[in-house]
Amino acid sequence: MTTKIILAFTCAALLIQPALARDAMPPQSAVEHFTLDNGLEVVVIPDHRAPVVTHMVWYKVGSADEPAGKSGIAHFFEHLMFKGTARHPAGELDSAVAELGGNLNAFTTADVTAYFETVPPDALAAMMDFEADRMRGLGLTDDVIGAERDVVLEERRQRVDSSPQALLSEEFTATLYQNHPYGIPVIGWMNEMEQLNRIDAVAFYDRYYAPNNAVLVVAGDVDADTVRTLAEASYGKVERGPDLPPRVRPAEPEHNTSATVTLSDPRVGIPSFMRSWIVPSYRTAAPGEAEALDLLSEILGGGGRSRLYQAVVVKSGIAAQAGAGYDGGAYDPSSFSIYGAPQGNHTLDDVETAVDAQLAALTADGVTAEELDSAKARYLRNLIFARDAQQNMAQMYGSELATGGTVEDIEQWPERIRAVTAEQIQAVARKYLNPAIAVTSHLLPPATGAQ
Amino acid sequence: MTTKIILAFTCAALLIQPALARDAMPPQSAVEHFTLDNGLEVVVIPDHRAPVVTHMVWYKVGSADEPAGKSGIAHFFEHLMFKGTARHPAGELDSAVAELGGNLNAFTTADVTAYFETVPPDALAAMMDFEADRMRGLGLTDDVIGAERDVVLEERRQRVDSSPQALLSEEFTATLYQNHPYGIPVIGWMNEMEQLNRIDAVAFYDRYYAPNNAVLVVAGDVDADTVRTLAEASYGKVERGPDLPPRVRPAEPEHNTSATVTLSDPRVGIPSFMRSWIVPSYRTAAPGEAEALDLLSEILGGGGRSRLYQAVVVKSGIAAQAGAGYDGGAYDPSSFSIYGAPQGNHTLDDVETAVDAQLAALTADGVTAEELDSAKARYLRNLIFARDAQQNMAQMYGSELATGGTVEDIEQWPERIRAVTAEQIQAVARKYLNPAIAVTSHLLPPATGAQ
Repeated sequence: MTTKIILAFTCAALLIQPALARDAMPPQSAVEHFTLDNGLEVVVIPDHRAPVVTHMVWYKVGSADEPAGKSGIAHFFEHLMFKGTARHPAGELDSAVAELGGNLNAFTTADVTAYFETVPPDALAAMMDFEADRMRGLGLTDDVIGAERDVVLEERRQRVDSSPQALLSEEFTATLYQNHPYGIPVIGWMNEMEQLNRIDAVAFYDRYYAPNNAVLVVAGDVDADTVRTLAEASYGKVERGPDLPPRVRPAEPEHNTSATVTLSDPRVGIPSFMRSWIVPSYRTAAPGEAEALDLLSEILGGGGRSRLYQAVVVKSGIAAQAGAGYDGGAYDPSSFSIYGAPQGNHTLDDVETAVDAQLAALTADGVTAEELDSAKARYLRNLIFARDAQQNMAQMYGSELATGGTVEDIEQWPERIRAVTAEQIQAVARKYLNPAIAVTSHLLPPATGAQ
Repeated sequence: MTTKIILAFTCAALLIQPALARDAMPPQSAVEHFTLDNGLEVVVIPDHRAPVVTHMVWYKVGSADEPAGKSGIAHFFEHLMFKGTARHPAGELDSAVAELGGNLNAFTTADVTAYFETVPPDALAAMMDFEADRMRGLGLTDDVIGAERDVVLEERRQRVDSSPQALLSEEFTATLYQNHPYGIPVIGWMNEMEQLNRIDAVAFYDRYYAPNNAVLVVAGDVDADTVRTLAEASYGKVERGPDLPPRVRPAEPEHNTSATVTLSDPRVGIPSFMRSWIVPSYRTAAPGEAEALDLLSEILGGGGRSRLYQAVVVKSGIAAQAGAGYDGGAYDPSSFSIYGAPQGNHTLDDVETAVDAQLAALTADGVTAEELDSAKARYLRNLIFARDAQQNMAQMYGSELATGGTVEDIEQWPERIRAVTAEQIQAVARKYLNPAIAVTSHLLPPATGAQ
């Protein structure tokens, strides 16, 4: 089972996928959105190209909602959700999906925990039965908790503790976020994971796993009436959970310092750096700022046509890689990053200088009309590609609704991207990407003295 | 009133005073320690040299106990404690102490909040009446809260936001502590202080301000029987508060990276650095380790006879200042720091290199028997000097008891310092002061490019 569980880390620049996918939607009229009496939000995204449905349940809880000192419990809970109920013992869901030739998965981020199955349409009722059952019906014994805690501890050892990149990413993120719990790793700090127990798990489950804290997304070869009927017969019978207070996490104070976080490790061959700043997400930004940050990221460092790639990788040949990233999908303020690694005999310092110069030039002189048009076109084209995959669409709607957005937010996305001006892009670069408050990571081979 | 309130910041290396003062005690038999029926611990330290008593109330709550997102409330509460009760309106305590020619004060740290008055012995009953009354009897109206919040916001602006040193210290500390709330400033983050309200204040007061979460220390020209009689007549009538769970804060994960936090500011004339590591405090250390860290700090960087001062300031003349510090008095793990600033035309980099070399030499080769004997003698002599001041003694006992220590811990201190070996000192340096996980601050003038 555990090999199928995806752990989504909150590493800044690597999470551009959800933002890019935001625009990948079917015609507006097709998507239906309603709420059951017990508070469960339901989104239906018809997609009749193939006889398959994607069924996702999104809980509005992630690692940033964990109680202080209980890091890792949201992801731990993702594991516990597969440990069985009175009606469906552990393994039964996996077997059922495997026999159908479908697939299932789950993931945890700082903001959400989601579970999904892709199956033939006539198995939708069975999937709803499974998910509705485990929404409130898990059997959380000490034996189950203890055994699964060993599993997540081992997962941490393998994914993080044995990887210099992952260790650096964790401590870099802890430095970037001085106060907000986004600084705490999704998988948890080892010392706190070791202490997670049945009392913690039951309290977390009772508080967050309930229809009124969840979003059901069904995409695929099915109509909204059918989904409503099936959802009422399964999820509709699940009792409401407690009314939760507004989702307010400790916020970032003003940043005044720059910081550099360094890890040297014999397993590192080529050095690399990442430089990040706290910036608003779509949910927290002033109108237009998040869209401008998305296009700034695209123009500065989004792939082969970007300024960074063209200048630092192609023309000067200093860097083996260089780019930029922005994750606008976070519930709370997110980060914007630039990064690079040297090519041949060039040093990491050369690359940092060259990458910084590109950002400084853009901040000083802005972007051209051609660049902006081209970036918008690329951005919107990516959305069309993303639209093609049913799971992507389900993911986009689920992610949006589980983090405070609306169906309308998704539908108006392309228009808001098209409306971004060159001035807005320069303005967000000037406002947020101040070198005096950048946080930088350096991943170095042991001998390199750079810092 | 507010000018009299001391705010003790958690800045690592600057808090060596309490550790130095630990040994400053009167003969063992003289100190009496008992507990009232409502849970109030009482320590009486007779000191008949002058007709004066120091009366301190220590609450076992500091900024590291604050709820997530409510930073600054412990210190805010220190202010609110002067805003008056039904029996004693605001200002009455100040006036009473002033008329007696005494003094009063209060301070907040990450671990404790303390209130004290120094007065003639015949005013002790009156002081107890004031303190017992405000232990549970404050009138916390919205007007009082709003006005005093403005006062602490202004205090933050003056003490922190207008000082490059203080701003850097805050963000440096936030980097050093990746998870423990010692990373949050005692005064609070501005954005969270602005939100503090009456509901927060009342919840905090009801939870933490109670006899069973406090320690009363009376030092001076008074005997234990008198103190007991007076305390029973005043504090003895205050109702117990809730039974609090063990004081477990989120703990630090293993550190794997080094980090540098930099602030450049036009107000900075001479650059300086501080390099710190998380190390155990007396409460959390394995036997002998905290004592060894105290003597390591003394030998490496404790004043004019230390290795750092002799080598880097006196002999080579590279540095205008250089030293080391250790705060062993924290409830949870604390920090060990080295620091320095250049002299004349020498660069900060020169100073860092020279200071690092001294630490590296000590770690590689250990300390000599002469150095150890001399450091122990200086350490113990400091304690004798500290013993001379009544307030220091009261401070030492209050601090120890309010952070989980005992009267015996204080009494056995000198013996434990004398028992430290050269091997133990080298061992703690090797174990904890690893350059690969150091966190460094750089305070720079604007033009300096060093980082």
